[in-house]
Amino acid sequence: EPLLTPYAGYDVGVADEYDTNVGEIITDARDAAEADVGIVGIPFDTACVAGPRGSRLGPKAVRDELTHGTCYNPGLDVDISRGIDVVDYGDVDVDQTDVLAAHGRVEQALTAITADGVVPVSIGGDHSLTYPTAKAMMNAVDGDVGVINIDAHHDVRHSHGGELSSGTPFRRLLEDDADQLAGENFVELGLSGWHNSKYYVDWVRDIGAEIVTARDVHQDGTEHAVERALDAATDGTAAVFVSVDIDVLDAGSAPGTCAPSPGGLHTHQLLELVYQLGRHDLIRGFDLHEVAPPLDADGVTAKAGAAVVTQFLGARRASQ
Amino acid sequence: EPLLTPYAGYDVGVADEYDTNVGEIITDARDAAEADVGIVGIPFDTACVAGPRGSRLGPKAVRDELTHGTCYNPGLDVDISRGIDVVDYGDVDVDQTDVLAAHGRVEQALTAITADGVVPVSIGGDHSLTYPTAKAMMNAVDGDVGVINIDAHHDVRHSHGGELSSGTPFRRLLEDDADQLAGENFVELGLSGWHNSKYYVDWVRDIGAEIVTARDVHQDGTEHAVERALDAATDGTAAVFVSVDIDVLDAGSAPGTCAPSPGGLHTHQLLELVYQLGRHDLIRGFDLHEVAPPLDADGVTAKAGAAVVTQFLGARRASQ
Amino acid sequence: EPLLTPYAGYDVGVADEYDTNVGEIITDARDAAEADVGIVGIPFDTACVAGPRGSRLGPKAVRDELTHGTCYNPGLDVDISRGIDVVDYGDVDVDQTDVLAAHGRVEQALTAITADGVVPVSIGGDHSLTYPTAKAMMNAVDGDVGVINIDAHHDVRHSHGGELSSGTPFRRLLEDDADQLAGENFVELGLSGWHNSKYYVDWVRDIGAEIVTARDVHQDGTEHAVERALDAATDGTAAVFVSVDIDVLDAGSAPGTCAPSPGGLHTHQLLELVYQLGRHDLIRGFDLHEVAPPLDADGVTAKAGAAVVTQFLGARRASQ
Amino acid sequence: EPLLTPYAGYDVGVADEYDTNVGEIITDARDAAEADVGIVGIPFDTACVAGPRGSRLGPKAVRDELTHGTCYNPGLDVDISRGIDVVDYGDVDVDQTDVLAAHGRVEQALTAITADGVVPVSIGGDHSLTYPTAKAMMNAVDGDVGVINIDAHHDVRHSHGGELSSGTPFRRLLEDDADQLAGENFVELGLSGWHNSKYYVDWVRDIGAEIVTARDVHQDGTEHAVERALDAATDGTAAVFVSVDIDVLDAGSAPGTCAPSPGGLHTHQLLELVYQLGRHDLIRGFDLHEVAPPLDADGVTAKAGAAVVTQFLGARRASQ
Amino acid sequence: EPLLTPYAGYDVGVADEYDTNVGEIITDARDAAEADVGIVGIPFDTACVAGPRGSRLGPKAVRDELTHGTCYNPGLDVDISRGIDVVDYGDVDVDQTDVLAAHGRVEQALTAITADGVVPVSIGGDHSLTYPTAKAMMNAVDGDVGVINIDAHHDVRHSHGGELSSGTPFRRLLEDDADQLAGENFVELGLSGWHNSKYYVDWVRDIGAEIVTARDVHQDGTEHAVERALDAATDGTAAVFVSVDIDVLDAGSAPGTCAPSPGGLHTHQLLELVYQLGRHDLIRGFDLHEVAPPLDADGVTAKAGAAVVTQFLGARRASQ
Amino acid sequence: EPLLTPYAGYDVGVADEYDTNVGEIITDARDAAEADVGIVGIPFDTACVAGPRGSRLGPKAVRDELTHGTCYNPGLDVDISRGIDVVDYGDVDVDQTDVLAAHGRVEQALTAITADGVVPVSIGGDHSLTYPTAKAMMNAVDGDVGVINIDAHHDVRHSHGGELSSGTPFRRLLEDDADQLAGENFVELGLSGWHNSKYYVDWVRDIGAEIVTARDVHQDGTEHAVERALDAATDGTAAVFVSVDIDVLDAGSAPGTCAPSPGGLHTHQLLELVYQLGRHDLIRGFDLHEVAPPLDADGVTAKAGAAVVTQFLGARRASQ
Ligand SMILES: [Ca+2]
Ligand SMILES: [Ca+2]
Ligand SMILES: [Ca+2]
Ligand SMILES: [Ca+2]
Ligand SMILES: [Ca+2]
Ligand SMILES: [Ca+2]
Ligand SMILES: [Ca+2]
Ligand SMILES: [Ca+2]
Ligand SMILES: [Ca+2]
Ligand SMILES: [Ca+2]
Ligand SMILES: [Ca+2]
Ligand SMILES: [Ca+2]
Repeated sequence: EPLLTPYAGYDVGVADEYDTNVGEIITDARDAAEADVGIVGIPFDTACVAGPRGSRLGPKAVRDELTHGTCYNPGLDVDISRGIDVVDYGDVDVDQTDVLAAHGRVEQALTAITADGVVPVSIGGDHSLTYPTAKAMMNAVDGDVGVINIDAHHDVRHSHGGELSSGTPFRRLLEDDADQLAGENFVELGLSGWHNSKYYVDWVRDIGAEIVTARDVHQDGTEHAVERALDAATDGTAAVFVSVDIDVLDAGSAPGTCAPSPGGLHTHQLLELVYQLGRHDLIRGFDLHEVAPPLDADGVTAKAGAAVVTQFLGARRASQ
Repeated sequence: EPLLTPYAGYDVGVADEYDTNVGEIITDARDAAEADVGIVGIPFDTACVAGPRGSRLGPKAVRDELTHGTCYNPGLDVDISRGIDVVDYGDVDVDQTDVLAAHGRVEQALTAITADGVVPVSIGGDHSLTYPTAKAMMNAVDGDVGVINIDAHHDVRHSHGGELSSGTPFRRLLEDDADQLAGENFVELGLSGWHNSKYYVDWVRDIGAEIVTARDVHQDGTEHAVERALDAATDGTAAVFVSVDIDVLDAGSAPGTCAPSPGGLHTHQLLELVYQLGRHDLIRGFDLHEVAPPLDADGVTAKAGAAVVTQFLGARRASQ
Repeated sequence: EPLLTPYAGYDVGVADEYDTNVGEIITDARDAAEADVGIVGIPFDTACVAGPRGSRLGPKAVRDELTHGTCYNPGLDVDISRGIDVVDYGDVDVDQTDVLAAHGRVEQALTAITADGVVPVSIGGDHSLTYPTAKAMMNAVDGDVGVINIDAHHDVRHSHGGELSSGTPFRRLLEDDADQLAGENFVELGLSGWHNSKYYVDWVRDIGAEIVTARDVHQDGTEHAVERALDAATDGTAAVFVSVDIDVLDAGSAPGTCAPSPGGLHTHQLLELVYQLGRHDLIRGFDLHEVAPPLDADGVTAKAGAAVVTQFLGARRASQ
Repeated sequence: EPLLTPYAGYDVGVADEYDTNVGEIITDARDAAEADVGIVGIPFDTACVAGPRGSRLGPKAVRDELTHGTCYNPGLDVDISRGIDVVDYGDVDVDQTDVLAAHGRVEQALTAITADGVVPVSIGGDHSLTYPTAKAMMNAVDGDVGVINIDAHHDVRHSHGGELSSGTPFRRLLEDDADQLAGENFVELGLSGWHNSKYYVDWVRDIGAEIVTARDVHQDGTEHAVERALDAATDGTAAVFVSVDIDVLDAGSAPGTCAPSPGGLHTHQLLELVYQLGRHDLIRGFDLHEVAPPLDADGVTAKAGAAVVTQFLGARRASQ
Repeated sequence: EPLLTPYAGYDVGVADEYDTNVGEIITDARDAAEADVGIVGIPFDTACVAGPRGSRLGPKAVRDELTHGTCYNPGLDVDISRGIDVVDYGDVDVDQTDVLAAHGRVEQALTAITADGVVPVSIGGDHSLTYPTAKAMMNAVDGDVGVINIDAHHDVRHSHGGELSSGTPFRRLLEDDADQLAGENFVELGLSGWHNSKYYVDWVRDIGAEIVTARDVHQDGTEHAVERALDAATDGTAAVFVSVDIDVLDAGSAPGTCAPSPGGLHTHQLLELVYQLGRHDLIRGFDLHEVAPPLDADGVTAKAGAAVVTQFLGARRASQ
Repeated sequence: EPLLTPYAGYDVGVADEYDTNVGEIITDARDAAEADVGIVGIPFDTACVAGPRGSRLGPKAVRDELTHGTCYNPGLDVDISRGIDVVDYGDVDVDQTDVLAAHGRVEQALTAITADGVVPVSIGGDHSLTYPTAKAMMNAVDGDVGVINIDAHHDVRHSHGGELSSGTPFRRLLEDDADQLAGENFVELGLSGWHNSKYYVDWVRDIGAEIVTARDVHQDGTEHAVERALDAATDGTAAVFVSVDIDVLDAGSAPGTCAPSPGGLHTHQLLELVYQLGRHDLIRGFDLHEVAPPLDADGVTAKAGAAVVTQFLGARRASQ
């Protein structure tokens, strides 16, 4: 059975011949000779075990919003209508009731993509999926890697009552793949509120990870946060993975997610972080998770998710 | 047929005799001896051709919210219950299926109001309407004018597939009325995200317009933005028009609009811009567009729109 | 008839043995030997006379959200799972159609709690309730007190047409209890927008109160605001009460309230204020009002309210 | 202080000269020489003590929907654009925190209207208001009266914990005004679900009232229900009052109310009941309660409420 | 410029090899050798001049829901997975600001389709579009035609203030094309509530049309309604067009439309009507209008619309 | 680890001493000497593999609504405040990522309850859970059983791509437990729309099951449906299980579910079916599934679910 189901739904809307819609620059991966960046959907939210699910519909909603955008960002003065090849590999075809099997298929699909020299942009889905998305990068690169988790939460749980969950991906990476991912190269960026536990922050500190909280960003700005994150993630590493959990945003800007965060980052701050981190030469993988359309009023969370994805495309364009 | 339908619905709510509600200071234009500022509704969204419509209901929703407000702003220490005469001219009675005819009637109604020395505050409606609202100011004043577009988008399209649209007003003004509006006196303030095109920013730059992006505002503050905008818009001009597209706000603060902007301005930043710009002596026209009640959750977008309108009244009061 | 109805609904959700949920640290007051902080619900919104009611359901919604949180805040590096004893007294059992009787029962219940050396955290309910919640603190302490109102509104009305309302609590305190609360020890923090009246700000100034507007916070930061508020509220006083009206937040972050405030505080700013003020040694009472679940989209306002309450618990923990 | 605040907001929308909008036939009562029917708003929901409030905003929402309708009903072949004089008296200006005072003012205002030979159509508001609206009819007529309560609930409570509430109006009428309203002339029409108590149905039966449940209507049809209701209500009476609680409808058709009823009446059944009952010669009063706009999705409950009111106008037209 | 934009978005969801999803049986018209029925989207709501627009997004939403359905209806015992060829022609590419031009392109596209022997199923869009969709059938057939309008409204207006609108299509057909469509062959089925005018019903009666109201359907059942409708529409005609305005449904079942109808038809009644009418041999055209996704809560209106379309496919299957 | 987590949240609301709230008659199972009926929550929606999840939150939402109800139904003249002992066992504590393990724990918990002579009322959760809930009844009784599935769907899938799902429970029961459940004793009641497949109906017919569609109910009434269902389910059986999938309701009355059904049953019809079936002497088990609060507007689906549960309690009361 093929790993991937092609996505054929990019809708370029009402045409203005002087615009290039993002939908127009995204090619079906099967038709593309080469690619810089490759979008992959992962419609899976089974490992969201503690709040309302819904991110299984994230890939469709984010792509729907993505396609309406255009290719130029005036704040960045970056134009992605040329100079970057973007493809879409469709969705990973996953079982909905077997977390490990789903992770296995994601890892397999993304390892192949990364090995081809393409930077995958995975759109989930629950955050458990960063285990296979980041693992795929590790499989494809030689040497140590850095991982930056932009998230309101640690996500280094042992488990929820014995289960893998959306709270466990980074511990799995740090423990199971410790030869490639050292604690010192792991960054928690955006932790906020009262959703975390002392036990876990102690462990994160023990392994030497860098912690930059949402409060740090509010007080010291995004530039300082980027510097701290890159210092840690790039120290002696051959590749860096950036993972975005949309719940890092303030609840008012991202209500449509399993665990919204009052007091989280502003959307413009997150976009700045994604742009500054995404431009780094070592970036080899990126994912966005936890956009949950059934929980979203007015689609603002899906719109924010699409902005994050396009911003990352802009960052890659700017890095070239 | 009369151009205007009177508006009789200001509801002053539960009375506190020590309050003055905004609804209480707005007089029916037919009953007023004189006026400083005149509210005009334009229930028209036909030129919104590329996303969901809804701003036709904007004038009613913004007025409904407006009427609940009171006349004092503690941050500004400004009281509009005295020292400024505000009237309401009702709605321009427009055809819903003929864009040019509607624009013609808007231009005619507002030219007369402006010529009377009143500063019109038009509440739309789709952003195509800034062609006739700004044109009316040009008709009524001698000499060059400046225009400041506070918007996430350029709105200098040639057209959407041959049609006038909410994306075309400023090109029409800059091309058709170039004798009164020079590119150097045009300001794009608040551009953000991935909703614009390189082709159009190149044109905006070519004509010498000033561009202050949302990112500029987030990084350098509102004061600097105001300074840049006024420097350009007032340079050799006899009058300045300020246009606000509510989609300049962050999507979380203004979801109820055709094209919400993740990462846009905070509401307090927009209000600061409106206050600082609105106080300038040369201001002769103002409009607010794209509040679309059917797309709005909890009415927050209409509330933001009403705050923008009242803030402008406060600015006019402060300028006197 | 007993004053209080016990609350038995804390739901600790899916267990992770390394987490401590906030629901787990809150003990039924009847079972607790001692307490530092005591939660009290006040399901009453009758004095909300001028907009949509709904805050009667606030205590339930805020507690529901509260229980999902965990005990550690990475931005503050504070852990409330130990070092602080938190109890829940249940809801004050109030009549829904008699404002004075309801206030009387609230005052009676909270006076007893405060006299026991517990800091009550009252969750309302409409803001009229700060009359009895603050009065209870005055009853229980000797000497002068300070009161800090974190609110978009003055709430020093004479009345709405002769009635006590959610707009009258602070005038009642300042006039009826002037021997304990001097104008100089009263702080209005967060006033914004066009919801207030010149007549009332003049009175607030006349009595010598400190006014720190939302615009001040946006321009000068939270630290400066805290300093100004504490300077006033602690000047010669024996105890300080902090009251939070959730409508002090920007409408996009707190739509679910009677009178949302476009341009109000960001949630992270409010949380910072609560933390810095809540740590002060003189704090003897705290309340949160105006979370109105029927008006809330996606529950973001209830989540913000729960974050405020937990933040205050964190502040108390940090002060010990 | 005047009892009534005029209502000036009927909006006749886009004109079609061959239509007569309902808004066009409703005259301000102050300007009308005579009237058959008089609309009165009662913005009061304080006696809703056990669920979410919101019906205070019912009069505005129902009138807003009413005004969009036109004057002809093809199913009934009735045209209200002629042959009936409809006026609007505005809203009764009531205190929001004193139930008895509010009831007193409602009774006073409606007694005068009824005494003038006008049939009042009161739009509330919580159902407690049927005490004064029906009492006003009793005041104005000589002789016994019948009352038909179209409602999912008995509303014959003693009280909720000692308070008058939206559950008490009919006991008050039946006990306090027993000389004019006999149990045998009282009809409960539409009782459904699990929202009532054996204790109260026993009392209703004891006093000899007629009970026609929603299940009876579903099984036997509206015609039979009307016959039973009229037989009881008109037996020896000089006037009949019909009261509609919108929660008699199925929850899917009227979600925007304090206590929705799964399995309640279909809207077309309610409209049929209103039409058949409303045509009776003895009808001297009518009210509609419990439309709660803040609880309403898509405005369907307000639309249903407006349809009920217009249907009653149609019934009065048909009776003439 | 091509008339049609292909639609490539049918999403067959999670596969069960024993199911056939509706999305699987719909072929791109360009790839199909022959067809019985052809779906055509018309994303156009400009002629909705009097209420909130939104049906421009109807084709996308209805197709999205359609694709999730399967091919068997147990109530009808009809299976559309074989025995009927269904194609999709994509959307008619229309100008959004020129009603007549849009109608012209729709008429041109559908005339060609009908002439090919395919029964078009047009999904709009506002109801003005039935002028070109029915006109196309007239163009393609010789002889008289019948038209059945399943709608809460007459839609035989002269105009709204001089404009073509969603209220005018049937008068245009009856007047402009009177040689092919006699009043006696026109049926108004489902008229309800207070949204129509005596002036128009008089005209409808004058021309001899058949009127079957929603009240008739509620009282006499769908079978009788179908009989009356077919008797009129097939009397001496060579072809029959059936048009469905989703607002014929009760507002609780179809809130997402410009003008919801409290008391309208139940969904099961509409589906029965569509099935019984759609099986008739003379049916040569069908359309569905006024599904307005931005006005829809929970997508129930789009789901109802998709059910109507699939029901019609079932009717065509059953007729073969 | 204990199978069950106690539920302590029944909230009896504002007290009227003459009412008995449903929350008051439900005892914690640990405190009860004996019971007729036992409520069990199953917060599990993992086997919902093809649409949006959300029913994991069903047990909480249905219980919240349940508790507000009172004990008397006037249509049925049944009072559950006496004559029936109802307990609550809390929620089955299930793993969220392992369907078979979750089913095993449900089966174990419910087998014990049924063996104690209690009729379990399980509130899910996705419909896969009827495998263990019905299996538990089979475990506890000797002899053949009947099963009545009140559902818009067959739910006799082999699987979705190899997985157990909410579409598979009845095939599992019919195949794996064929010695106790014969096809002739299985009833599909309420099938509707275009959500099923010919392949599956053929299998259902082959095994001799009884099929009563929603269309049958609309045409022939509930009484006939009940007769057909009981004839089949009780023929030679020792016990009967009734399962309700809330999606059997019309989409307008139950939007908050994974797969809403336009044209499904009216709520009053479903309640009638539950009452007539639930009174039968052979009933030994009942469940309600697919109420998905995150997908629900205004809570109408949860309210319908609570009405179904209470109706079943009424049926049990009536049978005694
Ligand atoms: Ca995460
Ligand atoms: Ca997270
Ligand atoms: Ca614009
Ligand atoms: Ca814009
Ligand atoms: Ca306040
Ligand atoms: Ca306030
Ligand atoms: Ca009632
Ligand atoms: Ca009621
Ligand atoms: Ca129509
Ligand atoms: Ca219609
Ligand atoms: Ca099912
Ligand atoms: Ca089902």
